[in-house]
Amino acid sequence: MAVGNSVWPEFYPIKGVKLGVGEAGIKYSSRKDLALVVLDEGCEVAGVFTQNAYAAAPVDICRKHLGQNKSIRALVINSGNANACTGIEGVDAALRCCDKVAQLTDIEQTQVLPFSTGVIGELLPFEKIEAALPAAYEALSENNWLSFAQAIMTTDTRPKGASKQIEWQGQTLTISGVAKGAGMINPNMATMLAFIATDAPVSSDILDKLSRVAAQQSFNRITIDGDTSTNDACILIATGKAELETIEAEDTPLFNLLKDAVIEVYQSLAQQIVKDGEGATKFVKIEVMGGRDNQESLNVAYAVAHSPLIKTALFASDPNWGRIVAAVGYADVNQLDASKVRIWIDNVLIVENGGRAASYMEEDGQKVFNQEEFSIRVDLGRGDASELLWTSDLSHEYVRINAEYRS
Amino acid sequence: MAVGNSVWPEFYPIKGVKLGVGEAGIKYSSRKDLALVVLDEGCEVAGVFTQNAYAAAPVDICRKHLGQNKSIRALVINSGNANACTGIEGVDAALRCCDKVAQLTDIEQTQVLPFSTGVIGELLPFEKIEAALPAAYEALSENNWLSFAQAIMTTDTRPKGASKQIEWQGQTLTISGVAKGAGMINPNMATMLAFIATDAPVSSDILDKLSRVAAQQSFNRITIDGDTSTNDACILIATGKAELETIEAEDTPLFNLLKDAVIEVYQSLAQQIVKDGEGATKFVKIEVMGGRDNQESLNVAYAVAHSPLIKTALFASDPNWGRIVAAVGYADVNQLDASKVRIWIDNVLIVENGGRAASYMEEDGQKVFNQEEFSIRVDLGRGDASELLWTSDLSHEYVRINAEYRS
Repeated sequence: MAVGNSVWPEFYPIKGVKLGVGEAGIKYSSRKDLALVVLDEGCEVAGVFTQNAYAAAPVDICRKHLGQNKSIRALVINSGNANACTGIEGVDAALRCCDKVAQLTDIEQTQVLPFSTGVIGELLPFEKIEAALPAAYEALSENNWLSFAQAIMTTDTRPKGASKQIEWQGQTLTISGVAKGAGMINPNMATMLAFIATDAPVSSDILDKLSRVAAQQSFNRITIDGDTSTNDACILIATGKAELETIEAEDTPLFNLLKDAVIEVYQSLAQQIVKDGEGATKFVKIEVMGGRDNQESLNVAYAVAHSPLIKTALFASDPNWGRIVAAVGYADVNQLDASKVRIWIDNVLIVENGGRAASYMEEDGQKVFNQEEFSIRVDLGRGDASELLWTSDLSHEYVRINAEYRS
Repeated sequence: MAVGNSVWPEFYPIKGVKLGVGEAGIKYSSRKDLALVVLDEGCEVAGVFTQNAYAAAPVDICRKHLGQNKSIRALVINSGNANACTGIEGVDAALRCCDKVAQLTDIEQTQVLPFSTGVIGELLPFEKIEAALPAAYEALSENNWLSFAQAIMTTDTRPKGASKQIEWQGQTLTISGVAKGAGMINPNMATMLAFIATDAPVSSDILDKLSRVAAQQSFNRITIDGDTSTNDACILIATGKAELETIEAEDTPLFNLLKDAVIEVYQSLAQQIVKDGEGATKFVKIEVMGGRDNQESLNVAYAVAHSPLIKTALFASDPNWGRIVAAVGYADVNQLDASKVRIWIDNVLIVENGGRAASYMEEDGQKVFNQEEFSIRVDLGRGDASELLWTSDLSHEYVRINAEYRS
């Protein structure tokens, strides 16, 4: 199940980024489960990673390799095995994969970033990856983004991609990316990974900032089941192939243009993950305004987004507004005055003055809940801070997928 | 569904507490949905209530009536309607019920505590309750605890009661109570209510402290779906009918004896709520030790207890330890060193040194997960603070109950 239709978008390749996929047979045979990305010289690479204390071996290695002052020239990604909770052997296995890539492409091990997604706690079968890498290397092409998106899928039901072009002084700049993930995490198989590239020339510092800002407004604002993976990673690459001066400062017109476009691509990918959430049948935007600060607005948004009672009501298309009220009421907000709070679903006011809105009619609520996509809006009535989240529902299918997964 | 068998325990009535039930036809006809409790003069009453900002009208009235210096003489409880989010009309409706009880029993309105559980946002049909109260009054008896437990049920599949006697200097003291609730909350119908009474003579201050301590170690340590009702209430009554000096101080031998017994009754009721959780097929104790402070131990326990991925693995009897590791890793603990953490299921060590325990074998984990009841134990390895929680799994039945509830 998934919300809406699966449409692979019109997709613009990025000069300087070549992609190849392969079949390593890590968990299943005869499916793409390995991807290699090779970058031309001169690219800048930035990334954000899981905050989980049990970060997987490849995440640790990515952080280390990015922290060195050598340019990153290749990425190697496998699905079917997360290489998490695998200790020192796991680190060795991931480095073996980096070594093989380095040897094929004539670079150093520390110029390779490794990524894994799949089962936790099982050792990565690095020999299978070593054996399959030469074919992936042979297949390298700038036009392989769809294959790349497919190779990193696990419980995803469809590949996820977004691509956008913007104009600046007669030049066309492109931002393109893919992502995978079908729970905000399913530690077995549905880690979130995202790889976005642009041909804009961006300095290392600015790219790092852009990467953080964009992730904050996209992947950090979606939630399916509230879990956080050991392997989550989101990488932003700037190849600099567009013939422009390098962007070295924030708040210039070009930086702002690029930032908005990058955020749009990030948000599209993040929303595609929610729509393909495990068992998802609804896609709901939760907006909380009127908070004293962003944290309390976010607390309310998460309380609503994580409530299993609201999520099952979404699944049932049941405009059960009492459950929304209860979640707002128990969210972590210091001394919330319920009489000042207003709640809407789309444009239908459901709650004000501490109770059901006088104008509310069940049939209006039902119309909103019958849709596949709608919004829940909460005005806390005590300040100016707004936050928003995107989430999905809790269906029979979610339980089936996660209960039956390993069997 | 529910975990284990339903056995109504050997139950000792409490001198000075009379109970009567009736059929008001609030949501369904021909079922007990109204209960009246009348207390002899001289009883002390204490209570703890929901922290939800949308506390229901009866909760506000309970707080107000308990805050006055008049002794509480009666409780009136209905199921089928929560009288929550009903504004000033809801307050009037609840007070009308108190008035009727006051008139029947010749006391004042402020000596009555009202409780409601059921659908949010619909006005309480107080005329139906007024009409049914005389029959409940006629039925008053000290031996009606089972009927009382049944009358307050909503989505509960069985009545919940616990009763215990202790000896002190040749005297027998009794503690007995009932509870209802089948989600930590289902704002529609499964608010948690608990009513516990003892014949021990306890001063007002000490009873208030005892009520808080016992709730903290029982009802505040269970979680089914993480939601918190608008109507939760837990009441402790001391009738003083036992012929002993009044307990007016903490840390006396008699106080400690009574406290342990009261906590035992509270914990039994709280555990019965989890075992009867909506769709529950597993009952799991989560112990977290080795925290620097209680809050971080509790954060880890809640992260494990609330993870939908762990809850679906419990349902599937799948010893999917990676999901437990991931939840421990993302819990709110400042700079957790994963290499110091150890995790057991019952006595089977599953994780140490940042990865799978060398001694762990899947068949041992499977044996533990095949049971209806077991424990997940986490040692954070950084301090002495321990916490524990009881929780249930996330099943198809949970989704069915909560998705189909209003239809």
